[in-house]
Amino acid sequence: MDAEIIAIGSELLTPFRQDTNSLYLTRRLNELGVEVIWKSIVGDNREHLTQAVRLALGRADIVITMGGLGPTEDDLTRECVADALGLELRRDNDLVTALYAWFAARRSKMPDNNKRQADVIPGAEILKNEKGTAPGQFWHGEIGELEKIVILLPGPPFELEAMYDAQVHSRLLPVVPEEYIATRELKIAMVGESAADTRASEIYKRFPDVQTTILAGAGEVQFHLRARSESQEEAQELVEVLADRLETEFEEEVFSSGGETLEQIVGYWLQMRGATLSVAESCTGGLLAQRITSVSGSSRYFVGGAVVYSNDMKTSMADVPPLMIAEYGAVSKQVAAALAEGIRRRCKSTLGVGITGVAGPTGGTEEKPVGLVYIAVSDGKKTEVLEKKFPGDRDRIRKFASQQALDMIRRRLRA
Amino acid sequence: MDAEIIAIGSELLTPFRQDTNSLYLTRRLNELGVEVIWKSIVGDNREHLTQAVRLALGRADIVITMGGLGPTEDDLTRECVADALGLELRRDNDLVTALYAWFAARRSKMPDNNKRQADVIPGAEILKNEKGTAPGQFWHGEIGELEKIVILLPGPPFELEAMYDAQVHSRLLPVVPEEYIATRELKIAMVGESAADTRASEIYKRFPDVQTTILAGAGEVQFHLRARSESQEEAQELVEVLADRLETEFEEEVFSSGGETLEQIVGYWLQMRGATLSVAESCTGGLLAQRITSVSGSSRYFVGGAVVYSNDMKTSMADVPPLMIAEYGAVSKQVAAALAEGIRRRCKSTLGVGITGVAGPTGGTEEKPVGLVYIAVSDGKKTEVLEKKFPGDRDRIRKFASQQALDMIRRRLRA
Repeated sequence: MDAEIIAIGSELLTPFRQDTNSLYLTRRLNELGVEVIWKSIVGDNREHLTQAVRLALGRADIVITMGGLGPTEDDLTRECVADALGLELRRDNDLVTALYAWFAARRSKMPDNNKRQADVIPGAEILKNEKGTAPGQFWHGEIGELEKIVILLPGPPFELEAMYDAQVHSRLLPVVPEEYIATRELKIAMVGESAADTRASEIYKRFPDVQTTILAGAGEVQFHLRARSESQEEAQELVEVLADRLETEFEEEVFSSGGETLEQIVGYWLQMRGATLSVAESCTGGLLAQRITSVSGSSRYFVGGAVVYSNDMKTSMADVPPLMIAEYGAVSKQVAAALAEGIRRRCKSTLGVGITGVAGPTGGTEEKPVGLVYIAVSDGKKTEVLEKKFPGDRDRIRKFASQQALDMIRRRLRA
Repeated sequence: MDAEIIAIGSELLTPFRQDTNSLYLTRRLNELGVEVIWKSIVGDNREHLTQAVRLALGRADIVITMGGLGPTEDDLTRECVADALGLELRRDNDLVTALYAWFAARRSKMPDNNKRQADVIPGAEILKNEKGTAPGQFWHGEIGELEKIVILLPGPPFELEAMYDAQVHSRLLPVVPEEYIATRELKIAMVGESAADTRASEIYKRFPDVQTTILAGAGEVQFHLRARSESQEEAQELVEVLADRLETEFEEEVFSSGGETLEQIVGYWLQMRGATLSVAESCTGGLLAQRITSVSGSSRYFVGGAVVYSNDMKTSMADVPPLMIAEYGAVSKQVAAALAEGIRRRCKSTLGVGITGVAGPTGGTEEKPVGLVYIAVSDGKKTEVLEKKFPGDRDRIRKFASQQALDMIRRRLRA
């Protein structure tokens, strides 16, 4: 079965706002074996909205609208869907009463406009809105000879998600044919996107029944695998076989096959090894500590860190000898190692990490260009230092450096 | 003039990927007075794509497609646009030669498939792709009696943006009627979204000619104002008058009226005052330092910071007396103040900031629930401490706390 999603609201046609609800709905619909074949984004415009619904009904089995259910003149979804279906709205008295009650409970008078929220498409079931005033609607009927479903959902994400989970999923379940979509997600660290794609495409090309989507960020490539079948087992089997082949190809470059982030995996290994961690960051300016501590429970293995932006701070917080900075420069292999070793001693942690580099856009020289970063990991006996030249802007260089540090910690711990 | 944007690619109909190019294009089109009235997202499907282009030509003056210009069988945009226009593609020999040259320069043999990238819509100008192999196309002609423009752009954002900037903008400029869109952006800190909207809507409702979009994050509300007019001055005047009224209403809660982030504004004030800053963070775990150092040039005013997750670290890096922690607890007004004062002394900075709290989801107690955060700013003479109970999950609580700290620094410096 196919679905089409229509996002409604003039603000979604500005440079500032974007529909994100459709990603949630797509995930949920896919779980039922329903594919999304088209998405439209239209403004609060009667003609466009009616046309969008009519066209969608001609293409898809399920049409879902999001937004335009409020009480104002701009909220046209109810009317336009009714128009597209060739039906006339009727006002539901129970809903009017419920709206009065909602306002009374909040000790305020209901504006007359709000009664429009009680207008219902004939034959539609009302979907209660537990998080706001705008009720949704679920219409299931025939157009010509064809069975169609039209679902009206509110625009705010928390209202939409709560309504879908509690009232839409259960209504779709008995209607959609038994088809299953299985997914798997593999993440690899510090392999370039095109290199990863070249290696992976040799493999996934041979699995045309599995849809493979590749997402890439600074130092991270994700493979999203997806297969559909009439049986859950078969769909699962399809993605598992491809996932196994990819895991064999990328081996220890794969850090996660269950959706975990790299910082979660690092936390997992630290706990497994009963180890603790401290960090001294220069160019990443706290980003590494922030990523590590974004994981709930990280206080069990993260002791602390220092953001040592100035040379004085490198000395006073991580005991880097001033003479070393004078001789090799703040951005050097030696200082990175000293930061890792110094912060480790100070914090009495199992592992210490030091990062120093040129994040740019200014401050680069011929010898030490923007993007040059040294990353060190020390366990007190052995200190490993990597020299890297990362591409991109300040933000991207900092992300790369923090990703590289996390990956070094991961590799050290799993060895 | 109106435009319609069509994003092409089956991966854009999965839960993992989203069109973001259209936000960039919308901003650039708005600068020319062109409104985007509809966006469609379709898969690599011949029938859907042809239909999408045909429908768009019926509604808008300018139709822009993004994606589907590659060399593979899945790349259908050229053919489908030609179909929708009722034209037949012809192969451009110069383009074929250029493609061969591109591959030769990279010492690789061109796959035969790639010749498809030299297929051109009759009458279209070719848009050179400086960042990849897929050329774009610009078609300007009449359909029936109506003048229409169709622009084919590649999907990867850096290819699309470079091509638009260098080759599309200049072609649209003489074609679009002189109409201007003026925009203004006001940002306010630490006012709730609904409170901000209630206060603002009283004002912006009286300016129906200005479109006002409100975006809200943790501790930040943004008002995006937008007006169009035949004269640049009039459009500007429309947004300025409303911006002034909103600035008067929110007064010192407004931290930016030119698009700057709060961390940029804090950096601006620190430099204005010749002041420096250091931070000691517990529950925000480096987020505050990371935000401050995300600004290029922040090394001029940011000395350094400590991420003091454990009690020992609070003592060893920011000199918080162990007895104080024992008496009042690590999450307390006293410890926040001691962190701010201690890190300030250690770093010899003008201002010191201390943050301690319960970011959750675990670790909350009845007395010290999840979301309780103490934030202190000290200049050595006066230490101000705020007690806050932030809503939301770990991520949101940490964002709120870093935002509150930045706003306290800003208010202290501008006073």
